[in-house]
Amino acid sequence: MSPTNATPPSERTRVRRVAQRGRYDRETLHAIVDAAYVCHVAFADEHGVHCIPTACWREGDHLYIHGSNGSRMLKLATHGAQICVTITHLDGLVLARSAFHHSMNYRSAVIYGVFDIVEGAAKAAALDTFVEKIAPGRSREVRPGDINELAATTVLRVAIDEAAAKIRTGGPRDDEADMTREVWAGVLPLAMRPRTPIIDAAPSGTPDYVRQWHEIASANAAV
Amino acid sequence: MSPTNATPPSERTRVRRVAQRGRYDRETLHAIVDAAYVCHVAFADEHGVHCIPTACWREGDHLYIHGSNGSRMLKLATHGAQICVTITHLDGLVLARSAFHHSMNYRSAVIYGVFDIVEGAAKAAALDTFVEKIAPGRSREVRPGDINELAATTVLRVAIDEAAAKIRTGGPRDDEADMTREVWAGVLPLAMRPRTPIIDAAPSGTPDYVRQWHEIASANAAV
Repeated sequence: MSPTNATPPSERTRVRRVAQRGRYDRETLHAIVDAAYVCHVAFADEHGVHCIPTACWREGDHLYIHGSNGSRMLKLATHGAQICVTITHLDGLVLARSAFHHSMNYRSAVIYGVFDIVEGAAKAAALDTFVEKIAPGRSREVRPGDINELAATTVLRVAIDEAAAKIRTGGPRDDEADMTREVWAGVLPLAMRPRTPIIDAAPSGTPDYVRQWHEIASANAAV
Repeated sequence: MSPTNATPPSERTRVRRVAQRGRYDRETLHAIVDAAYVCHVAFADEHGVHCIPTACWREGDHLYIHGSNGSRMLKLATHGAQICVTITHLDGLVLARSAFHHSMNYRSAVIYGVFDIVEGAAKAAALDTFVEKIAPGRSREVRPGDINELAATTVLRVAIDEAAAKIRTGGPRDDEADMTREVWAGVLPLAMRPRTPIIDAAPSGTPDYVRQWHEIASANAAV
């Protein structure tokens, strides 16, 4: 396979363990970011290395995060600290015939870089993009951020450039000698699924994004 | 609230942003670890900071990981590098009446420390514990790791000691002035759910852990 838009792997992003699971094309990386609401951001300061979960979204070739100006992570990240952002989707437990070959199916993306601060009109637009990712149409329904709220919020982005994806799919890969062992083998799949919306107030009815969420939650999970 | 078994927060673990979401008691931390199959491990080397997802499990007051001896992360971690292990469960999207107060419900745990190498009989026992976590009873059904497989695997553990949990639950917390706004408000819950097992081979029937997985997957997700 020779994907288009592939960034050559760097010393940091080249997948070494089970190298055939590595992917460097943008389409794959973007799909993994788009499927996520949360990423983990690693950074170092005088107290050591930290790993903090935070909401994320994508626009073009950048991954965005946001938070309060007071956040230790955002303060540090705005000062040009090198960071590593990782997203992981667990897709299933792989049950092999030998203990050693048990595995997991997953899609992960690792992005190295430095955060840029997003300011002015681009900042408000980026926050709207995030609300739209969560609930299409909602950025026009809610009260928009006022000048103080926007000023209290930091928006950062990192280029999805020095980045790698790693993906495992499929069933167990056992040793030939174990194939006749009398034991169940296969995959126990897992997925993040919507559950029934919890209504706080619905003064003007149910918007499409809530109705769709409810429909998915109500559908049989096994389908 | 004054939880028992609470470790006093350190400079690194004291939750600063929305401090009332911070929890330091072992019961809370253990429950978050036990609900996870995957953690993110952050560490630093001469190339910068890294954040790598890996399988995890708990025994007593320790979080365990394992992997190939050849893994860059495990090689480094066995040399006493300071690490930060983070687990995050996303429980829902919180839709507030203003863009600014949108939030997420989650349970996260952050553990700081240094990995110890688990060796000898304790190493084989720890790997059995992991298989049992995934599928109770399975460690007696599969072919156990042979001497070469065990030798090729590194098992590490870190004390769940310098650690903090952060939890958000419940609906949106809006400003008083926004409470009459004509917009849907509430929570769109999310959960990791089992889906239908994919059978590779079942020469001796279906074990209980596969049957139970199937039952949960078949049940209505909305329940």
